[in-house]
Parts: sequence; structure tokens; C-alpha cells
Amino acid sequence: MTLALIAGAGALPAALVAALPERPFIAALDGFPPEGLAPDLTFRIERLYPFFAALHDAGVTQVTFAGAVRRPRLDPALFDAATAQIVPRLMQAMAQGDDATLREVIALFEEDGLAIAGAAEIAPALVPGEGLLVGQITARDQQDAARAAAIAEALGRVDVGQGCVVQQGLCLAAETLSGTDAMLSTVAGLPAALRPPAQAGRGLLYKAPKPLQDRRIDLPALGPASVAAAAAAGLGGIAWEAGGVICLDLPQMQALAAEQGLFLWARAASSGGRA
Amino acid sequence: MTLALIAGAGALPAALVAALPERPFIAALDGFPPEGLAPDLTFRIERLYPFFAALHDAGVTQVTFAGAVRRPRLDPALFDAATAQIVPRLMQAMAQGDDATLREVIALFEEDGLAIAGAAEIAPALVPGEGLLVGQITARDQQDAARAAAIAEALGRVDVGQGCVVQQGLCLAAETLSGTDAMLSTVAGLPAALRPPAQAGRGLLYKAPKPLQDRRIDLPALGPASVAAAAAAGLGGIAWEAGGVICLDLPQMQALAAEQGLFLWARAASSGGRA
Repeated sequence: MTLALIAGAGALPAALVAALPERPFIAALDGFPPEGLAPDLTFRIERLYPFFAALHDAGVTQVTFAGAVRRPRLDPALFDAATAQIVPRLMQAMAQGDDATLREVIALFEEDGLAIAGAAEIAPALVPGEGLLVGQITARDQQDAARAAAIAEALGRVDVGQGCVVQQGLCLAAETLSGTDAMLSTVAGLPAALRPPAQAGRGLLYKAPKPLQDRRIDLPALGPASVAAAAAAGLGGIAWEAGGVICLDLPQMQALAAEQGLFLWARAASSGGRA
Repeated sequence: MTLALIAGAGALPAALVAALPERPFIAALDGFPPEGLAPDLTFRIERLYPFFAALHDAGVTQVTFAGAVRRPRLDPALFDAATAQIVPRLMQAMAQGDDATLREVIALFEEDGLAIAGAAEIAPALVPGEGLLVGQITARDQQDAARAAAIAEALGRVDVGQGCVVQQGLCLAAETLSGTDAMLSTVAGLPAALRPPAQAGRGLLYKAPKPLQDRRIDLPALGPASVAAAAAAGLGGIAWEAGGVICLDLPQMQALAAEQGLFLWARAASSGGRA
């Protein structure tokens, strides 16, 4: 069983490779070079079937997606005949949003005989189960996490984002296209008068998969940079859906959170608390 | 029947007063002075019942709320005995979010014999009915408005905000605590590479009331500044739920939109199009 990693942008692909017992075959989408990894192959969506053939030639039977990609711009001149046939399918899926697009891409790989493995499946150590990993949480934090989980579910159900920031019941920011770091930098820039007084609860970043997404791809991710950005935004900690979020370099995240006085909480999806 | 306007921040209270046949009694929350209006009375939440008494003394029987207020910080030393009795009710409502807080405030006024009138009721000219008011919309704009309406409904249902920005099906930003202007300035600051190419659709700002809110208070508002901010964010126009959004100075909004090449579209809540 040979595994190929389809590596997007960000730190996740390299973290995943480091967590695997042996180096996988590494492929990257043209224009989205992975950080700290040398791809064995670079491919374009316009030539998806030649790419599938190259994977088969390399003995690949299983594929994992990791890292961010944005909608690539397609160049009509580059299509091969087989890939051109599936353009209407792709276009229709893209018009329905990111979830639909990813489902369609998964379907294309599977139809070609390539099994999709989730990051959580091949590197379970990166996806912490339930528990308070660093620091302390208050009743206020529990209420904020419950409210944030309800908001993230609503946002996810309309395919908008995988996270939000809540302080004392108020939603300070919702994740959209520009991602978690941009959301946290928005929060850091909020006028102090807009935010409730910190002594009654500093608020938290919350992340969770979208309710309708295929959990084999595009799980939300956290890393040391998220901890630093949450601290810079004046938050009290980070909570996330246990078993549904990838943590890049958890030891480093824990060290940084302890140093900054933040909690890290892998929260059970079924946790109570007023939403 | 004497009307009192409870005036919050922003341009809405003055616009409302200008649209009324005669000047109402004007009250303002301490710390939130209305723009361009001299209040007849300034009140504090801690002394709500003395404020009610003052309204009755002035012959007020009907009250309209207009303009933004944020959660005021309460000073325990200022409470009168009657108002102190309702603190637990207020606290419980505030813990449940802005919608619940506003519902509770409305209930307190009504229990004291003061009727609540919506801005749309006393100044219907400020709340345009269905129609394309300026410019042209494409099929892409119609799809974006339908998707934005679905996102705004989801956000509103969890009491987060009353608007979002959608371009070619992608949610570029969702309105939270910091409001529409902050959301549009976030969009204006997005890296160009994150946004889809403008020639396929410039995207739109969409606003609508929250599904569960009392439409007598806290209707979303648009004004000339919204048009300027939408233009600065590179959007193609503004759409909103017809009959559910207050337009401050519609002639000025229309002139500015025409000048900037933006559409203004009061869209029927039941409009079709793929969400």
C-alpha cells in the first residue's frame, strides 16, 4: 500500500510527513508549493487524468490531502481530452461551494481506483481526543465554547468557515475565506471599547469541522502560530472539537500556551453548556 | 399620542426625526449621544423606572428605538430600588445574547404601559419595498444574493450579525460585533489573490434582519457611507431584504451608487436563485 500526499500550502503537509512512519509520495498542485517539502510531482487540475496515471505508475493506491489550496484558475488551453470531459462536473460543484467541490474531487480520485485516507487516520497523534491539555477553564469559558460551537455549526452548515471567536457570549469574529489568522488579527485590532471587560472572561478561539464536510479532507488545523495569534488577540484560550481538528506540533503549542497563560481544550462535540 | 425616540449612536436617529411629521420627545442613553440631535432627556439603565416616570410625565405613550447602543456597563451604586428588582431578569437576558436582551427591554417598556413602534411603522419612507433602485444585476449577482441571504439567515439565527459579503459564491466576510463598516473595511483589505477575478462578478454586500428578532427594534440600516464603503471594497452593489432594512438618505445613496457604478437592490425575501 503506497500512500501519496497531495500537499497544499501551510505547515500541515510537512507536519504530517514528520508524523508518518515512512515518507509518502508527495504531489503538489502547481502554484501552491508546500513549505519544507520537495514534491515528487507537481500537477494541474487541467491535467487530472495524466496525474492519476502518474500516481498509478508510482504504485500509489491511497491518497491523503493536506494543506490549503484556493480555487485554482483554469487555463482552457492546458486540458487533455479526458480531463476536459469532467469540466462540467467540476464547474457545477464549484458553483455550489467548497464542500461540494471537495466532494467531487474525492469522487474523481475514488472512481479512478485511488482510496482517500484522512489525516486523522494515517497520523492519529496529530488529532487529540477529548481533554483539557493546558491551563484552566471557567464556567464562563464553558458557556463561551458552547455558544462558539453553535455558531461554528451554523457557519459550517452554510459552508462559510470552520471557526469563530466568542467573548462573554458575544461573537467577535467569524471565520470566512481569509482564514483563522486573518480572523484573529481582526480581533486583535478591535477597539477596546467594543470588547467586554477582560476580567469577566477573555474569550476564546473555537474551531470545528463543518457539519456536512467529508472528514477525510480539509479538517481544520491549529498550530503554534494559532496560539501566538490568540494571545495577541487578548483571548483566554483555544477550544476545539475533540477528534475533529489537527494540531501541528502539539508540544510546541502546549509550551507556548503555558507560557502565555492560555488554555488549550479539546472539547467533546456533545459537551453541554448554554449555547 | 406622543412619541418618544430612544436615540442611540449613528446617523439613524436624526434621519428618523427628519422623516417624521413632527419632532418627537428625544431620550438618549447616557454615554451614547445621538449625532445631530439634542436629547430632551438622558437616562441610565440603572434608573430605568425613574426614566419611565419621566416619559409618562412628558405625556409619552409610544416609544421608538433607533440607533446603535452597546451593552452598557452597569454601576451598582446608581440603581434605584425598583430598577434593582429587575437586574436578575436583565442579566439573564444579557447572558443569552443581544436578541434576548432587546426582547426583555421591550417587555419592560410594555409592562410599564409604553407601546413600542417600529421605525418602519412611523417612517415607512425609510424602508424601501421590493425593487432594483439603481443599476443592473446579473445572474451571478442574483446567485450571490441568494447565497448571501442563506448565510445571513444562518448567522442571524445564532444571533451573530445582520449581513455578509459574497462574491461568486464565496463568503468574503460575515458581520459580527464590529458592524458593517468594519466588515467592509476587512473586505477592502483582503489580498487580491484571495478574491475571485472581478470580471466574473464583483460580489455584493447583503443585509437582512435576523430571523428571530423583533422587527420593531434594531432593523439593519444602510446609508450613503455604506455605498461608499461597498465601492471601496470593490463590490458590484448592495442587496438587502426588501421591507426589512432602513435606508438613511435614499436619494443620496442612489446618487452615490449611480456615480460609483453600483447597484442597489431591495430583494424580496422569497426570491429564488441557488443558495
